[in-house]
Amino acid sequence: MKKLLLIYVVLIGTFMAYLYMVYFREDSGGPLDQEVGLHGEVDEKYVMVNFLTGIDYWKNVLKGFEDAAEALGVSVEYRGSTKYDVHEEVTVLEQVIARNPAGIAVTAINSEALNAAIDKAVEAGIPVVMFDSNAPDSKAYSFLGTNNYNAGVTAAREMAELSGASGKVGIITLPNQLNHQERTQGFEDTLLAEYPLLQLVSVVDGKGDQLVSEQKAQAMMEQHPDLVGIFITEANGGVGVGNAVQSAGKLGQVHIISFDTDKGTLDMVKSGTISATLAQGTWNMGYWSLMHLFHLRNELVEPMADWRASGVPPLPTYVDTGISVVTKSNVDDYYAK
Amino acid sequence: MKKLLLIYVVLIGTFMAYLYMVYFREDSGGPLDQEVGLHGEVDEKYVMVNFLTGIDYWKNVLKGFEDAAEALGVSVEYRGSTKYDVHEEVTVLEQVIARNPAGIAVTAINSEALNAAIDKAVEAGIPVVMFDSNAPDSKAYSFLGTNNYNAGVTAAREMAELSGASGKVGIITLPNQLNHQERTQGFEDTLLAEYPLLQLVSVVDGKGDQLVSEQKAQAMMEQHPDLVGIFITEANGGVGVGNAVQSAGKLGQVHIISFDTDKGTLDMVKSGTISATLAQGTWNMGYWSLMHLFHLRNELVEPMADWRASGVPPLPTYVDTGISVVTKSNVDDYYAK
Repeated sequence: MKKLLLIYVVLIGTFMAYLYMVYFREDSGGPLDQEVGLHGEVDEKYVMVNFLTGIDYWKNVLKGFEDAAEALGVSVEYRGSTKYDVHEEVTVLEQVIARNPAGIAVTAINSEALNAAIDKAVEAGIPVVMFDSNAPDSKAYSFLGTNNYNAGVTAAREMAELSGASGKVGIITLPNQLNHQERTQGFEDTLLAEYPLLQLVSVVDGKGDQLVSEQKAQAMMEQHPDLVGIFITEANGGVGVGNAVQSAGKLGQVHIISFDTDKGTLDMVKSGTISATLAQGTWNMGYWSLMHLFHLRNELVEPMADWRASGVPPLPTYVDTGISVVTKSNVDDYYAK
Repeated sequence: MKKLLLIYVVLIGTFMAYLYMVYFREDSGGPLDQEVGLHGEVDEKYVMVNFLTGIDYWKNVLKGFEDAAEALGVSVEYRGSTKYDVHEEVTVLEQVIARNPAGIAVTAINSEALNAAIDKAVEAGIPVVMFDSNAPDSKAYSFLGTNNYNAGVTAAREMAELSGASGKVGIITLPNQLNHQERTQGFEDTLLAEYPLLQLVSVVDGKGDQLVSEQKAQAMMEQHPDLVGIFITEANGGVGVGNAVQSAGKLGQVHIISFDTDKGTLDMVKSGTISATLAQGTWNMGYWSLMHLFHLRNELVEPMADWRASGVPPLPTYVDTGISVVTKSNVDDYYAK
């Protein structure tokens, strides 16, 4: 009889504990309560769509996207065109849309080609944000990327420091691409406004190619033997310019400022051939893209397909993901880990 | 005996349910598990510091700050100077810092005065971000606010639409304040670049005052009887310009574009006196300021006091909180609810 009583006490105690837990869960939120903090569902899948999927540049963007997904308890997937091919990226994006994901972060291979697909997704209620390269006339909710004009300003100030703010400098760039035009403009405007003794003597097309940029740099140094610096607005050309300056025996006289942080560029920064390179805030692009998409998907902000026409932007329209200057002194922090 | 068996079955069933719940909680995270989703502690207090605390303009900023705090399960507090008084805001900010809060969102009454206090906070490990008005030379981690140049661009395009893109227009502004200079510049550049027949004939100082702006608008209309529009870059003056155009009997001929959404401005938009006013993304400023601070405080991104000098910006350096055009057709959405 005593034994039976003991069993009763244990079981009734358990029952009380159960009731307490149920009450506690309702009171302060449990695993099924979406109201405590920001978190989604594991089957809530966000897709990142890019082009040239294999290049190093995206690695840190993906890492940011993943880190945000982990923080929010949601899933991610990566898709894109392996080649620099507009039609391939459009096709991939349309395939992704057809599977109705929780949201899509897109980088545009050019500023127009993806508009129709992006608009279709937004009108179908799939949140879309742009990162790295914008499609400004699409219905995407926001753009997260580098302010390229400001990057050019930063490059000019760095060049002034390297050269003592005096002498002839040149730019090797991609004159037909908007982001490179902006980098060039920021550099040029800053020389005019802040460094009257730094004279921009040449702006040429390096075609985004290592050899072409090398030849252009050689020609520039022959034409201007007293050149003190070259700003090269993309990484392939940067390595070419490095080779040209090295071959000409002008290391230390002609200062090179390059762009981005692929291994070839970082190696030349480490060896001192390239004086500085500009690193983009790639992790920020991925992380805050997912954060924006999550807010739209879970209606923490109001997703309105016609937001550009009809009122308050539901999200910040532009997020400047920042730029930093990489030199010999901090280059080790930028190698992929 | 059967009765006893039934009680046993019920109690054992309850015990199983209890075990299941305990298991389930451990498996997928419960209310005490900090790893599921983004959430903080109730005693994690974030403070917003502003000036002219009583004005309508801040209401929606505070709402955004509060909404983010609620989503993340943290607390907020508001402090600021009641007057337009630099020393008062500095004192308030120093008092806030002394209490070591989880983070501080600051709007700067001017771009320099708060730098020392902001830097002290950041160096002491208290995250600081700027909203609405920046302190660009401080160590604050980011700035969240309107792109005023772009707001001027938007105003110019709206003016072109109202006036048929032809005729004489004027600007009434605060020529000594950076944000107003940027609005003016964006407007001016856009006329030059896109609307050759819209001619800017006058830019004058309205001193942020209703009566002064009214007199300046009267004088402008007398000097240019064929004026077709006035862009007034702040709200007090907007109401003054509205009164001037009304008194002159020129409603419909002189189109007014104003700034912000206080009640006086909205009433004049509703009545048709002011054709359009530009609404800033104030909720976004508050919401994403708290989100940034939360990420620094909880080390989801690395808080480094010397981030400007030493490397990758831990947060997006600038968040453009967006702008929208308020006209008679959507003005009702902008009255405080």
